[in-house]
Amino acid sequence: MTQPRPAGQHTVRRHNSALVLGAIATAPGISRAGVAARTGLTKATVSSLVDRLIGAGLVHDAGPEQRPGPGRRGTSLSLSPAGPHGLGVEIGVDYLATCLVDLTGAVRHERIRPVDNRFRPVADVCTDVAAALDEELREAAGAQVTVGGIGVAVPGLVEASTGLLRRAPNLDWHDVDIPAELRGRVSLPDAAILVGNEANFAALAELWTGGHDDLHDFVHVSGEIGIGAGIVIGAELFSGVRGFGGELGHFPVDSDGPHCPCGARGCLERLAGQDAILERAGAADLDALLDRLATGDGAATGAARHAAARLGIALSSVVNLLDVPAVVLGGTYARLYPWLAEPLRAELGARVLSASWSPVGVVCSTLGTEAAVRGAAASAVRAIVADPDAFMDGR
Amino acid sequence: MTQPRPAGQHTVRRHNSALVLGAIATAPGISRAGVAARTGLTKATVSSLVDRLIGAGLVHDAGPEQRPGPGRRGTSLSLSPAGPHGLGVEIGVDYLATCLVDLTGAVRHERIRPVDNRFRPVADVCTDVAAALDEELREAAGAQVTVGGIGVAVPGLVEASTGLLRRAPNLDWHDVDIPAELRGRVSLPDAAILVGNEANFAALAELWTGGHDDLHDFVHVSGEIGIGAGIVIGAELFSGVRGFGGELGHFPVDSDGPHCPCGARGCLERLAGQDAILERAGAADLDALLDRLATGDGAATGAARHAAARLGIALSSVVNLLDVPAVVLGGTYARLYPWLAEPLRAELGARVLSASWSPVGVVCSTLGTEAAVRGAAASAVRAIVADPDAFMDGR
Repeated sequence: MTQPRPAGQHTVRRHNSALVLGAIATAPGISRAGVAARTGLTKATVSSLVDRLIGAGLVHDAGPEQRPGPGRRGTSLSLSPAGPHGLGVEIGVDYLATCLVDLTGAVRHERIRPVDNRFRPVADVCTDVAAALDEELREAAGAQVTVGGIGVAVPGLVEASTGLLRRAPNLDWHDVDIPAELRGRVSLPDAAILVGNEANFAALAELWTGGHDDLHDFVHVSGEIGIGAGIVIGAELFSGVRGFGGELGHFPVDSDGPHCPCGARGCLERLAGQDAILERAGAADLDALLDRLATGDGAATGAARHAAARLGIALSSVVNLLDVPAVVLGGTYARLYPWLAEPLRAELGARVLSASWSPVGVVCSTLGTEAAVRGAAASAVRAIVADPDAFMDGR
Repeated sequence: MTQPRPAGQHTVRRHNSALVLGAIATAPGISRAGVAARTGLTKATVSSLVDRLIGAGLVHDAGPEQRPGPGRRGTSLSLSPAGPHGLGVEIGVDYLATCLVDLTGAVRHERIRPVDNRFRPVADVCTDVAAALDEELREAAGAQVTVGGIGVAVPGLVEASTGLLRRAPNLDWHDVDIPAELRGRVSLPDAAILVGNEANFAALAELWTGGHDDLHDFVHVSGEIGIGAGIVIGAELFSGVRGFGGELGHFPVDSDGPHCPCGARGCLERLAGQDAILERAGAADLDALLDRLATGDGAATGAARHAAARLGIALSSVVNLLDVPAVVLGGTYARLYPWLAEPLRAELGARVLSASWSPVGVVCSTLGTEAAVRGAAASAVRAIVADPDAFMDGR
């Protein structure tokens, strides 16, 4: 046990540790002097904190830095791939995905398990989730790394202030405390559990690791059984005042359209969701649809075109309201991109009021269906980097 | 002419003047010592700046402050009602409104002129606007006050970076440089001209002077010939990435609905705009409609109910997307509020995914059709308070 110390000292050190680790995360390869210049801390303070971050396994020192110009060479610091990992899990409507990501953001293990979760009881699904987490924890133990945080992506509305899943329409879940459900089912590490909407996590993954340079303002739409939207503005997630924002699945696109379990008619999900496209094309599954699209099959291309037009009606309103300059097609839409992009662009061009001088970009996600679980894992990693104190010795 | 001085000194004084004036604006009746405590500036600096702000007519000193408790009494400072005024003008689709507001936000003069501006050439309308501005400038001169800034509200998409009116669908205007048009037509004072979307100005007026305590997150919808929305989140206007946000008029509410000049069918404006309501009710104008609503006339109440349901379809999607907890009905909707509120609440309750545990508030605007022009004038005043240096002597 350590000696009790004044609270102020601890708070300052906690703050400075985060500052130093943040500088190293932003500029991998930076030297101690570089960190001091970036943070405004003294070189002595930086050196002491870097030593402790290295001791905690969070930072790796790769020896003399490689840089042009005169002056003494420092040593090159970066986040350590052997440091605490982030573990992501996504409770999909028809799958369960897990992903283990190291501090640098590299994916170390990933698994997607098809399972129909529609209308299954919370307890049953959470038992499966716990088993999937156990598997990843064993994976981490085998690689001799610890898990420092867990992100859980869910297909529903999560209250930002409480982390409570208030409603998941396609699972028919209400007011579920996911962390409490999980802690009762598996001996989880003493790690923070962060619950978020899958579309929001997917949008963040696209922002952080999608490789779209200079794309800082966009709506990410993922087409699965449900349709979710994640809004990114100024390189930050916009999830509304209480966290319930980004719901696009029940956008009304056809007042004569099919009835939706939500009570309305012609909701976007019923007309442009994965199931609707498959049904219209007469395809058994996505692979069958893609095979037929590749051969130019009329029913298949027609179904894609029909969905794209409906998607365009909804996204035009989103762009007219939020003035975001680009749409990223994610989830299964990423795989259908070659057949969706053109009719979607046409619909946006006709309906977005600013389109005549500023066409809306339509971009293909590089992460596809894995985006949400990767975003969940990456968010867990970012939480560690933002507050590394709990992982440092001699607190 | 004053002596040239180093730029740094001027910049610091400019910054500090704004700090001091901002403190006085936020806490009317504050003393010099209070300003020093709030701003962190020395009492000597505050005293010197306050003297200069009084000299420039921006601040009024009302003598010994009224406050309980011990200690020496300072004198009570507030923004001066005799200081430079803000002048607002709104180019409505069927009216032209002007408004003169003093530094404290009090309306000193206001006039609304009915005129059908639909499809009139820019030059004709701007000649009228210049005449209306001249009238208010004479009004100001008669009251021996100057006009320190002008805000122009327009029914269209204004580019934030340039102030250019890119498109006003109901006027059929494209790429109009309003300040340039006005400067050529009237000898305006050497004041900044700020152009903005009318719905955004209206939302700001509602936020600043609507008297809705604790309402910091809402969508303000004004029903005129066009339908505009202004989004306020965290007590700040959200107008999208480039300023084109908040467009709700062409939200698709009925795929079989009437054709719209925009090219689509069933746009909200065509089904819930003022003209649509009047036509459905068979009323000649708004006053006739209100008379008939007051007597419980079936066609009139039916028309209001029909419009409210369509408005509810659009606003449900806005709330699902942005997660704003309240809707403010402005413009002509404010006058129709007693007949719109209930069916609108029902539609929101059925369609907003978070409504079962967090019903959407439906609030009546206290400013009605005057909101936009008042917001334009108030924005001009706030620009003066935010940077008073140009109005101070001995720059």
